[in-house]
Amino acid sequence: MSAIRHALTTKREDDFAAWYQEVISAADLAEESGVRGCMVIKPWGYGIWERIQRLMDDRIKAAGVQNCYFPIFIPLGNFTREAEHVEGFAKEMAVVTHHRLIADGKGGLIPDPEARLEEPLVVRPTSETIIGDAMARWIQSWRDLPLLTNQWANVVRWEMRTRMFLRTSEFLWQEGHTAHATREDALAETHRALEMYRACAEEDLALPVIAGEKPENERFPGAVETWSIEAMMQDGKALQAGTSHYLGTNFAHAAGIQYQDKEGGQQYCHTTSWGVSTRLIGGIIMVHGDDDGLRVPPAIAPHQIVIIPMLREAPEDAALLAYCDELKQMLLRETALGEKLRVLLDSTPGKAAAKRWDWVRKGAPIIVEVGPRDMADGKVAVLQRVSLWNVENGKPAFQFLGREDFAGQAGQMLEYTQQALYNEARERRDANITRGITSMDVVADHFADGVKYPGWVEVQWSKPTGAALDKVVEQLKALKLTIRNVPLGGAPADGACIFTGDAAVERIFLARAY
Amino acid sequence: MSAIRHALTTKREDDFAAWYQEVISAADLAEESGVRGCMVIKPWGYGIWERIQRLMDDRIKAAGVQNCYFPIFIPLGNFTREAEHVEGFAKEMAVVTHHRLIADGKGGLIPDPEARLEEPLVVRPTSETIIGDAMARWIQSWRDLPLLTNQWANVVRWEMRTRMFLRTSEFLWQEGHTAHATREDALAETHRALEMYRACAEEDLALPVIAGEKPENERFPGAVETWSIEAMMQDGKALQAGTSHYLGTNFAHAAGIQYQDKEGGQQYCHTTSWGVSTRLIGGIIMVHGDDDGLRVPPAIAPHQIVIIPMLREAPEDAALLAYCDELKQMLLRETALGEKLRVLLDSTPGKAAAKRWDWVRKGAPIIVEVGPRDMADGKVAVLQRVSLWNVENGKPAFQFLGREDFAGQAGQMLEYTQQALYNEARERRDANITRGITSMDVVADHFADGVKYPGWVEVQWSKPTGAALDKVVEQLKALKLTIRNVPLGGAPADGACIFTGDAAVERIFLARAY
Repeated sequence: MSAIRHALTTKREDDFAAWYQEVISAADLAEESGVRGCMVIKPWGYGIWERIQRLMDDRIKAAGVQNCYFPIFIPLGNFTREAEHVEGFAKEMAVVTHHRLIADGKGGLIPDPEARLEEPLVVRPTSETIIGDAMARWIQSWRDLPLLTNQWANVVRWEMRTRMFLRTSEFLWQEGHTAHATREDALAETHRALEMYRACAEEDLALPVIAGEKPENERFPGAVETWSIEAMMQDGKALQAGTSHYLGTNFAHAAGIQYQDKEGGQQYCHTTSWGVSTRLIGGIIMVHGDDDGLRVPPAIAPHQIVIIPMLREAPEDAALLAYCDELKQMLLRETALGEKLRVLLDSTPGKAAAKRWDWVRKGAPIIVEVGPRDMADGKVAVLQRVSLWNVENGKPAFQFLGREDFAGQAGQMLEYTQQALYNEARERRDANITRGITSMDVVADHFADGVKYPGWVEVQWSKPTGAALDKVVEQLKALKLTIRNVPLGGAPADGACIFTGDAAVERIFLARAY
Repeated sequence: MSAIRHALTTKREDDFAAWYQEVISAADLAEESGVRGCMVIKPWGYGIWERIQRLMDDRIKAAGVQNCYFPIFIPLGNFTREAEHVEGFAKEMAVVTHHRLIADGKGGLIPDPEARLEEPLVVRPTSETIIGDAMARWIQSWRDLPLLTNQWANVVRWEMRTRMFLRTSEFLWQEGHTAHATREDALAETHRALEMYRACAEEDLALPVIAGEKPENERFPGAVETWSIEAMMQDGKALQAGTSHYLGTNFAHAAGIQYQDKEGGQQYCHTTSWGVSTRLIGGIIMVHGDDDGLRVPPAIAPHQIVIIPMLREAPEDAALLAYCDELKQMLLRETALGEKLRVLLDSTPGKAAAKRWDWVRKGAPIIVEVGPRDMADGKVAVLQRVSLWNVENGKPAFQFLGREDFAGQAGQMLEYTQQALYNEARERRDANITRGITSMDVVADHFADGVKYPGWVEVQWSKPTGAALDKVVEQLKALKLTIRNVPLGGAPADGACIFTGDAAVERIFLARAY
């Protein structure tokens, strides 16, 4: 039994952070742009984002939310209206101060001192305040409610330490913003969005997540409640993969979002906001990647099946290409996961084996190689990315199938892959959650230096607030830990608070996080 | 025969500019945001943009072009590399100079003087220079060519006078950027993109356009050739609806985009860029709108058919809604223009007649009203937006059709509407092009003050360049005219140049323009 050679130079267990960077580069997902903190998203990475957008957008529209587009620039004054929002956001942002450049007399350009803006503009870090202005114009009466809007946009938060997909100065996202007559309606929408994110993460991205409420100290600036979905990466750290906020009437007061109720009285709206971003791609890499590169769940793979003809730059190539194209046409008539299959016939120049490994690193779910001998036998050689290696002999686990047989099974194979990726991630996550710890000393040991991949621990607490919570947060910070969330539908508390010894009221997850 | 009452207060012939603004507001397409030069695109307007995006993106992908995403910020230095590009673009742009805000001590915020950027960043007005940097990294050998990329993005050009959709400081667009080994390949791509725009404009947007080359003075800054598609608005003015540029090796020299040829030599790439924007929506309004509001071509209508049940807030409503929903389900099984029908059952509160006029103003291609009597008869009342009025009696031209009959015909009706909108616009445009004028005095009379909707004139010229062209441009400017383009496939010249009297070499269109 020979050794399995992997397609990357860095293994996850040797250096997870370096492995992450290598996957991004080896799968050709993105690269540094040279512009501080901004990345270039390359075709395979952007194709995955387009798939996520399409599936999430379908879910958003199905909920009756309508897409709009709001200005990228927010006047400075908008940020000073909501006190907590200022605190949280009005710090590291890109500020536009001039609207013209002039020659500096040395062959360069400088901002024209004559073209200074009276009120500087901020490049949106999030759009509550500018959409709040629009809501204030659009809503007059209870008949205008609920108002359900969303936008797909770029936002900028000036990050000091950046990491591709996870934390970049500019990123792409969707931000839903809704206004409601009552607290109950707004809370219901907050939960609807949260559940939509859970379903999209689990069903489309094959990312098992835990939905729950963030503690007070992790709330969105200006929110009354912040809910999140949290995913466990393969190094055991948590990634906040989406958030949904109940904003109370805070932003409504700041922007004057009022409605006339059925009795003729003026009321402030209750608003929500919710978003997911290109950060999800970071999560997909760190949950589904392996030592051979990325593995893309079929539901979001730009190409689900890549057919590689073994071309020889010879006259016989024409027949082989025709044979492969026939396979492609057969596959295009099939469906998986409720959609038509997405198939690429990769007839670019180059050795078939080199191309195979490119697609392995990119994580195409199924790779099909076809040589003249396969064609003569009416067969194709099928490699499934989730079971790449033959553990018996350490070679790629090709299955030789009749062309028609494969075409008929391909949809099922993709659905199997989708489920297999979810199951694998789910089992790993569940195996790496430790429950029942009742003392912070044990937590400290659990997360001691040198312990590899400690995962998450679930503990019970008394939900301290204010200064008492600050103390807890400090204590956790010393262990580089954060409270991830209070899981929805978690078991009730039945013990003592791990921090205070008081009676616990709920369970929380502690973890290191991205 | 009673008078036809129209749904807008302003008629096109009374005040075209005011009518344009009224349509935008009456059809609920967009509104001023309060942020200088930026608009809010509302759901119906954004839904039209999403349809344009989807159809154009399909065409872009079918051509093998891959979507990417590049940074919104461009370092100032990038703009000084390509001399003409600086001249043309490095003027009115949004300049980011700071990356942090601090309190001003008076309850407000100011840019933090400590957080001034060493090199200011420009919010992209177009991305040749930043994508050029990426191309220089990505291209090494002739094997890497052609490189075909596109991005869907927002861009900012600080406009002094703005007009919704036509000229806004921020707008949405796609920008294709490609690199090729040879001039011939790059020119072929320039023309492919131009033809793609022509086909999308004519087939999807029902906008007849004339594709041709822009004169030297109208070239994109840094381009060797600029081609455009030009559409005629109902006031006879031209709208440049899309452009495709052959950039020669200018940007390749500026960014160092080089490849090793088959003989091992280093060569500069020939690049192209091409784009269309939310400006297209302005064109759709001004070509297809009428005195009742917008008329959206079915291919890009977010909802092609709107079903309005005549609800009475009574128990019988349930049966009526069920009847309408059955119709919707029947329609969803039908296709038109190669896609499944898009159908809205509008059961929002409100009088059916008021809702009908809302959808007339928005320009939904088919509006179906269903009352209890229609239901009893198994019928529906169908209103086609392209033939809204019964000219005999001046009333809305409802057709009473059996429900199943209508469902079976709906696809054809939509295809008819698509074609009818195109034909109407095409006939109007062709009727408003004047040919055969050989003297500038006649041109001056044709465009004299007080002449309404003079349209375009086709004249012959000797294609002067440099100072001689400047003189021509000045002469035209006095008449508020511009050269639109030299039509592709136009008749050969056979006379004298209208400006110089020399032998003409080609025909050009003169027009007032947006």
